[in-house]
Amino acid sequence: SWAGAPEIEGEGGWSFKPRGRLNIDAGSFNAPDSTGREDGFNSEIRRARLGVEGDIPGGFGYKFEIDVAGNEVEVTDAILTYEDGPLTVNVGQHNTFQSLEELTSSRWSSFIERAAFTDAFGFERRLGVSVELEPSDTVLIQGGLFSDNIGDLPGKAMSADGRVVFMPEFGENQLHLGASVHYTDVPEGDTVRYRQRPLVHFTGERFINTGNMPAASEFGAGVETAFISGPFHAVAEGFWQSSNLVSGMEDANFFGGYAEAGLFLTSGDSRGYRGGTFNRTRPANPVDEGGMGAFQLNLRYDFLDLTDTGAGIVGGTQNGYMASLVWVPTDYTRFLINYGRLDYNDAVHAAAGGDRDYSVDVLGMRAQIDF
Amino acid sequence: SWAGAPEIEGEGGWSFKPRGRLNIDAGSFNAPDSTGREDGFNSEIRRARLGVEGDIPGGFGYKFEIDVAGNEVEVTDAILTYEDGPLTVNVGQHNTFQSLEELTSSRWSSFIERAAFTDAFGFERRLGVSVELEPSDTVLIQGGLFSDNIGDLPGKAMSADGRVVFMPEFGENQLHLGASVHYTDVPEGDTVRYRQRPLVHFTGERFINTGNMPAASEFGAGVETAFISGPFHAVAEGFWQSSNLVSGMEDANFFGGYAEAGLFLTSGDSRGYRGGTFNRTRPANPVDEGGMGAFQLNLRYDFLDLTDTGAGIVGGTQNGYMASLVWVPTDYTRFLINYGRLDYNDAVHAAAGGDRDYSVDVLGMRAQIDF
Amino acid sequence: SWAGAPEIEGEGGWSFKPRGRLNIDAGSFNAPDSTGREDGFNSEIRRARLGVEGDIPGGFGYKFEIDVAGNEVEVTDAILTYEDGPLTVNVGQHNTFQSLEELTSSRWSSFIERAAFTDAFGFERRLGVSVELEPSDTVLIQGGLFSDNIGDLPGKAMSADGRVVFMPEFGENQLHLGASVHYTDVPEGDTVRYRQRPLVHFTGERFINTGNMPAASEFGAGVETAFISGPFHAVAEGFWQSSNLVSGMEDANFFGGYAEAGLFLTSGDSRGYRGGTFNRTRPANPVDEGGMGAFQLNLRYDFLDLTDTGAGIVGGTQNGYMASLVWVPTDYTRFLINYGRLDYNDAVHAAAGGDRDYSVDVLGMRAQIDF
Repeated sequence: SWAGAPEIEGEGGWSFKPRGRLNIDAGSFNAPDSTGREDGFNSEIRRARLGVEGDIPGGFGYKFEIDVAGNEVEVTDAILTYEDGPLTVNVGQHNTFQSLEELTSSRWSSFIERAAFTDAFGFERRLGVSVELEPSDTVLIQGGLFSDNIGDLPGKAMSADGRVVFMPEFGENQLHLGASVHYTDVPEGDTVRYRQRPLVHFTGERFINTGNMPAASEFGAGVETAFISGPFHAVAEGFWQSSNLVSGMEDANFFGGYAEAGLFLTSGDSRGYRGGTFNRTRPANPVDEGGMGAFQLNLRYDFLDLTDTGAGIVGGTQNGYMASLVWVPTDYTRFLINYGRLDYNDAVHAAAGGDRDYSVDVLGMRAQIDF
Repeated sequence: SWAGAPEIEGEGGWSFKPRGRLNIDAGSFNAPDSTGREDGFNSEIRRARLGVEGDIPGGFGYKFEIDVAGNEVEVTDAILTYEDGPLTVNVGQHNTFQSLEELTSSRWSSFIERAAFTDAFGFERRLGVSVELEPSDTVLIQGGLFSDNIGDLPGKAMSADGRVVFMPEFGENQLHLGASVHYTDVPEGDTVRYRQRPLVHFTGERFINTGNMPAASEFGAGVETAFISGPFHAVAEGFWQSSNLVSGMEDANFFGGYAEAGLFLTSGDSRGYRGGTFNRTRPANPVDEGGMGAFQLNLRYDFLDLTDTGAGIVGGTQNGYMASLVWVPTDYTRFLINYGRLDYNDAVHAAAGGDRDYSVDVLGMRAQIDF
Repeated sequence: SWAGAPEIEGEGGWSFKPRGRLNIDAGSFNAPDSTGREDGFNSEIRRARLGVEGDIPGGFGYKFEIDVAGNEVEVTDAILTYEDGPLTVNVGQHNTFQSLEELTSSRWSSFIERAAFTDAFGFERRLGVSVELEPSDTVLIQGGLFSDNIGDLPGKAMSADGRVVFMPEFGENQLHLGASVHYTDVPEGDTVRYRQRPLVHFTGERFINTGNMPAASEFGAGVETAFISGPFHAVAEGFWQSSNLVSGMEDANFFGGYAEAGLFLTSGDSRGYRGGTFNRTRPANPVDEGGMGAFQLNLRYDFLDLTDTGAGIVGGTQNGYMASLVWVPTDYTRFLINYGRLDYNDAVHAAAGGDRDYSVDVLGMRAQIDF
């Protein structure tokens, strides 16, 4: 069978499939000149991934992928899996169970970058062991014990994650309700830092940033809600991050969240969903069948508060207003254009007169294939 | 079908093919001892590439390859393509449209390294958008807008390239006439540097070198001419590089070019050509069919002038005399042996008595497979 | 056909197969607190390899694989091969011909790490040319000339290796007798250093270590003996390393070796062997056929002496006592758990009171798939 690339099957339950994706980005951002930040046009290969996945008779499987964007190699997924009915066990480096936005593949995101809190709070793949249970079609329970991202190993960080999802279908309508909790034990002497770029990745500038904070542990909790009805979808999440600072009298608390609504302008199209995350959109009328593909318009409000004055941390606040137009000519090709206006308060780079409340405008484009 | 590796095809126009190449080099070079340069035997994996290419229904396609020679990862091609009749659009990192020698794959080059000017003037793959048009079988028009190689991104360099090729066939004879122009906008504060190794890549020594020159922009223009007739081929190119120096009263001008002739010693063999570049040689009598493969003898004169006394730049001049013997046992295996004598004037490393006019002798060998 | 991944075959003798492996390790080690060494739990992706191998009509072939564990890329094998009857010629980076333990793939090792001497004496893949001859089913002769690992090239190191193996079968019993010799010419100004971790790789601590020694050359010689009889196997090796020190009056001499015995607890299982090395174990009753896979218990004594008082080198001595339990649920999946007690004398890190004779305890686990 074919799924972007050939999925080769052998007797007894063997399978093998190459996987990969290319994200080619360009765009521009504009910050107040007086901040002295470099802005303007830029471009990058955002993701260049190549890997394999397969099934091994006996219930085993694997997924192994590397990203080489920017001429640096980074292992993304490297897992051995075991499935037995509703149960899946994962061993290796994989996503911890953080949020719908983070767990939805970058291949299906509504905007070229994810909601600000997912990067800011350091969601990443980690080496560990996890269990996923789907006792019915509508319930998913996930939990895992993790050390660290392999780029930071060997090391002493340990974390635990849990997530539950309720995902009933009402006729043609898909509902998603989820919640997750996270605990990270920060090794003695290490720090945590929460910060975020302005929507696009091709700049290294961050206008909100807590700076390094000596911490003993982190605790996070998130709620997820989403709804898909034909061409329409809506999604909202909130995430509370609490850092047990070494020096502090009390924990430092931060919050991020977003609300998004999207509509396909082309008839018959709908956002894909499967197993607790959004999934591939397959255009009803792709260009290879004489159609024009699927066009989708999305609006998002993206909030991130990295300030906790009680704990003496002023990292800044983002109110982001964003719109995207997504064109999906065929199942495995995708083009996105984004506009974002990011209103910052207490930004870390002062503008003229010491002003730390200002806006940054951002335009981003992406061309994508995956297989 | 099979093309070194399996080319797997799916319904509706899907295809998928792994790609790769190994270049295993060894050799020796000999410079005057008094220059104090390290010479003698050396070896390396010159190229170790692995990638994929494929077609997606609707006219889309992709090519994605990495090079890991020397235990460093480098993305070579990473493009999404769209074809519609005579028109091809490329988005991503790919070759700019520089010269016949540069655009001909390293898998088909007559010598183990390309003509000196192609490296010296910094031809490389860059991230950008380009269009290729073949209005007829004999005309090719290429043009693109590029930022920089992804190893140098994010960054502000911008460039534009154009190339036209006229490639008529007269009976069994192939003619190639081409011309290209190039403009690079160098970011403020950056420099350009033109330099070149002595034919082999496994040494880091360069005997001609302009050093870093603060520049505002570069303009280049090249002419290409080639001819294939049965076992014989001849090719010559010239390239003028002009650098708008920040400090200079006038532009600094440099020139490189080469003339080459080759002859297959085995009957029935000819150099491959397709779409504006040389292509794979398929031996008439490969060893897997009981033959001895194809043997080809090549001679080259390779000139590079990195001196512009008017602009105050004395980078040195190379007059290179080279011979190569190429053995092609089968379509996808290749062995080369090269000899080169490089006469330098105004070399950057002085020999005894301050002498900067001397010769370097070079021997290089390569074993190659590709798929 | 299928061998973990599909082996695709084309007309005329073409073949192509993806290859790869994942080793996911975790464990703990415990050293005396007074040494001040960081110990405790740790984890890593030990190997994450992806590559290809293939045959080209005419007797040619290739093998090309990279390892990306730890987000660093490292070329393992990158060779072009030529086979003609009993003769194989290899060109490129590949294993030199060091020892049964080193030449046996990490996929089939009895413990998660190899015997101490193989790492200590710097066995590694190198770029070179080698010849392998199998004049009969029971004799293997190997020899090669090498430069260096490509991560260290360009460079001037040169080495030569030779190995002979006698491997008769007596009924169901496999005997293995081997011997190898090695010579490395160390470039002027370079040093050699012999050291080793305590059985597990996820720590960077070494308790025995000669430190850097200016050397002109190295000479090594090893003997190998192994025996497989049904569920039982035994193996022992010894290796003498002699370093011609620049400063020394005489050579510094070091020795390492191990003896190991293993037994399959499940009926019908036996350790694989082919062509002069151990090979894949294929469980008689794999889990995908309703069995429980193969269980194997191994014991090893692992000795390494990095001290030569005559030459003034006190690197320390290891007496290692190790046990492992290996579970092989299917041909291409494997789980190992190891315990090791390493008794050190003259360790490089002093414990309380300047004591350099102490023990380190180690526990290691691995989950593995390969294809």
